[in-house]
Amino acid sequence: MVITETQPPMEGDAATSKKAAKKAAKAVEKQQKKAEHKGSTTQNEAAEVDVAEGKYGVLKMIQSTGEHRDRVYVDVKDLGVSLEGKDVVAKESIVDILATVVKTSSPVESCTVKLVELIGLQVWVVSSAKSKLPLQIEDAARPETDDDPEALKIRVLQETRLDNRVLDLRTPANQAIFRLEAGVCKLFRDILTKKGFVEIHTPKIISAASEGGANVFTVSYFKSSAYLAQSPQLYKQMAIAADFDKVFTVGAVFRAEDSNTHRHLTEFVGLDLEMSFKYHYHEVLDTIGQTFTDMFRGLQDHYAAEIATVGQQFKVEPFKFLDPPLRLEFPQAISMLKEAGVNVGEEDDLSTPDEKLLGRLVRAKYDTDFYMLDKYPLAVRPFYTMPDPNNPVNISKIAAYIESFRLGCPPHAGGGIGMERVVMLYLGLDNIRKTSMFPRDPKRITP
Amino acid sequence: MVITETQPPMEGDAATSKKAAKKAAKAVEKQQKKAEHKGSTTQNEAAEVDVAEGKYGVLKMIQSTGEHRDRVYVDVKDLGVSLEGKDVVAKESIVDILATVVKTSSPVESCTVKLVELIGLQVWVVSSAKSKLPLQIEDAARPETDDDPEALKIRVLQETRLDNRVLDLRTPANQAIFRLEAGVCKLFRDILTKKGFVEIHTPKIISAASEGGANVFTVSYFKSSAYLAQSPQLYKQMAIAADFDKVFTVGAVFRAEDSNTHRHLTEFVGLDLEMSFKYHYHEVLDTIGQTFTDMFRGLQDHYAAEIATVGQQFKVEPFKFLDPPLRLEFPQAISMLKEAGVNVGEEDDLSTPDEKLLGRLVRAKYDTDFYMLDKYPLAVRPFYTMPDPNNPVNISKIAAYIESFRLGCPPHAGGGIGMERVVMLYLGLDNIRKTSMFPRDPKRITP
Repeated sequence: MVITETQPPMEGDAATSKKAAKKAAKAVEKQQKKAEHKGSTTQNEAAEVDVAEGKYGVLKMIQSTGEHRDRVYVDVKDLGVSLEGKDVVAKESIVDILATVVKTSSPVESCTVKLVELIGLQVWVVSSAKSKLPLQIEDAARPETDDDPEALKIRVLQETRLDNRVLDLRTPANQAIFRLEAGVCKLFRDILTKKGFVEIHTPKIISAASEGGANVFTVSYFKSSAYLAQSPQLYKQMAIAADFDKVFTVGAVFRAEDSNTHRHLTEFVGLDLEMSFKYHYHEVLDTIGQTFTDMFRGLQDHYAAEIATVGQQFKVEPFKFLDPPLRLEFPQAISMLKEAGVNVGEEDDLSTPDEKLLGRLVRAKYDTDFYMLDKYPLAVRPFYTMPDPNNPVNISKIAAYIESFRLGCPPHAGGGIGMERVVMLYLGLDNIRKTSMFPRDPKRITP
Repeated sequence: MVITETQPPMEGDAATSKKAAKKAAKAVEKQQKKAEHKGSTTQNEAAEVDVAEGKYGVLKMIQSTGEHRDRVYVDVKDLGVSLEGKDVVAKESIVDILATVVKTSSPVESCTVKLVELIGLQVWVVSSAKSKLPLQIEDAARPETDDDPEALKIRVLQETRLDNRVLDLRTPANQAIFRLEAGVCKLFRDILTKKGFVEIHTPKIISAASEGGANVFTVSYFKSSAYLAQSPQLYKQMAIAADFDKVFTVGAVFRAEDSNTHRHLTEFVGLDLEMSFKYHYHEVLDTIGQTFTDMFRGLQDHYAAEIATVGQQFKVEPFKFLDPPLRLEFPQAISMLKEAGVNVGEEDDLSTPDEKLLGRLVRAKYDTDFYMLDKYPLAVRPFYTMPDPNNPVNISKIAAYIESFRLGCPPHAGGGIGMERVVMLYLGLDNIRKTSMFPRDPKRITP
């Protein structure tokens, strides 16, 4: 149902298949009205002969009544001179067009398919859209960079888009975003599988909160209650203790955080990994860094068309990364922020504005959009982080957790990142709802 | 941490690294006791000289204190003659062994690594297991087919295994099961991606039950409530309406069914797909059938070692399938069951015993463990199934659902299957808890 420009000669002008469908639908509507108002038609109208009768109209709902396989169905994008002279059914969108493929005398520059035309024989509407749609794809797809002041007046609000997500998702940019997102997952898994990681699946229904007690959703579980996992953290660690050595998992994680911001979702897809190491957690940091570098390169190499399509609607600057990736230590980051005039303490967590500023400072200084921040202060990390021996803390509070690893467990470390954030940051989009197909936030659980 | 037999000569006999670790741990314990009881030791004991001092013991907890990278770490399975004469650290499980690699004069047949031995220089315990473990891996790994009547007495119960899942997962069979399971997901995704399917992620938190109102978990959602998705059904269909043409998704699904059987879980991983078709839903059935056939062949070709390892503990019969797969129509299945003496109606759903019997009948008649049952009666299908035009029903009850597809949507169909069931059935295992890493059922949400 991708909108592709074709040249249906029976309409006399270049048109999208959707336009053709609309025309066909209108013709049928006219037919039906005629039938309905038969009593009041003049003799002239009644005597009109429809030379195309039986060759267009609204198709009976497809219910797989038979085995009619004698037709050749071809996607519009696959039309080419090799099909010249053949009768094919170009099913694009919601219309079936039975047509003869004819080579054009000269390439049709205004269309995606330039070398052939279709001589339409029949056109049938398989599924017609309502005539009044809650939003126009054309409006939803309008470039944010469009300089035409008239055009800028028609903007589709984020809420309207999300309320009518099925229509909104039909824009070329959205088609590209979610194809690229599929690529992010594929690359993440393929790169790690190649490094010897095993994919695991961790439970989402759990008996205790995994990232501290706050911000957890409660589930009614038969006569008792349970929680939704805020991360696969404890389970991926248990998989290491269970001898799997290197594991990754891609799956839903849940945060009952009442954050109504551009970058928070209550449900997102976590890309997580955990691995044993020999001597130093930098072995793990190297693996994570290399995984992301390889992923960024894979996107650049295999999703260039999608990135370009997104760029036609949104301002996308090429994502910059270094190989090997940049690794900064937390105190270096604090120094850079202080130099830029920010008042921030050595043991403080970074605020969102500070994080953003740091990103800009790093980009200016090191020419990269991706870097790793090492030696994060334990004070602002969750309880499962290994204390830095040069900066010890009281570990008695996490004794029960340590106890669960007394079955013999190698030293290990890992990381996790939200898939939607990877795509948002990679494409430079301004809202995480743009990279979640059906986003969930404190105020939205539909559609 | 896979248990591999090695030949640590410093111990004087063949032993697993775990055994070596235990010995080292005991030696250290003895050392510590000596230190603790210094006051009461005799002069003789105090004067003992430990010639190996500083070459064994319990390693200080690894906290990544430095960058000591001058050692070569080698997994036991990678030891070979190419390393002869080199000093390496064989880290297997929870011990570091610093050793010189020596070529054996003749292959050591009792070990996995046959051509080299290690002359141990140092042995350090990285992480020691408790001396009293809740179950012994040896017992948990014992073949079910073991004919030794003495051995049969020591069986580890399913509940004990699941209560101590981290230990249980260390058996060779479990290591193989979950590696094969990762293979099932990889094959499912790779096969569909190659066919042009796009991976999507559907929300787990939803506002309305997706498979009818029963058996759905309720979630407290801020000041309101929501449900956990029982399937990605409506969302994968909406992705089709949104122009994605062919989609698949792999993710958690939830069923609040109080079924305490060998094949029900309250949370499992769904392998789902949905695609538009041109004329007949058999196009989709063909795609699903081919996907599974390709998956079975992929498992056979690339996971033969894992299948064999599972077979060493459980009775595994080779999984049989046809290419193209067998497709039966529901009435044929009913006839086969009736011929076998089962009293079953034309419009009845199949009971679990009937399904099992049918499987055996099909295997006997057609020599396949995989078949598709077409023309399932609408009466026992969920509301989103397209009515068979030769067997119409009142569709006014699903009018609101049909309304949501009035934005122009191609005819489409799809399917879904539980990943854990695929693995259970493929390997012929008797309980779905064997194929879920951390299973969830009405009585279990831990570990």
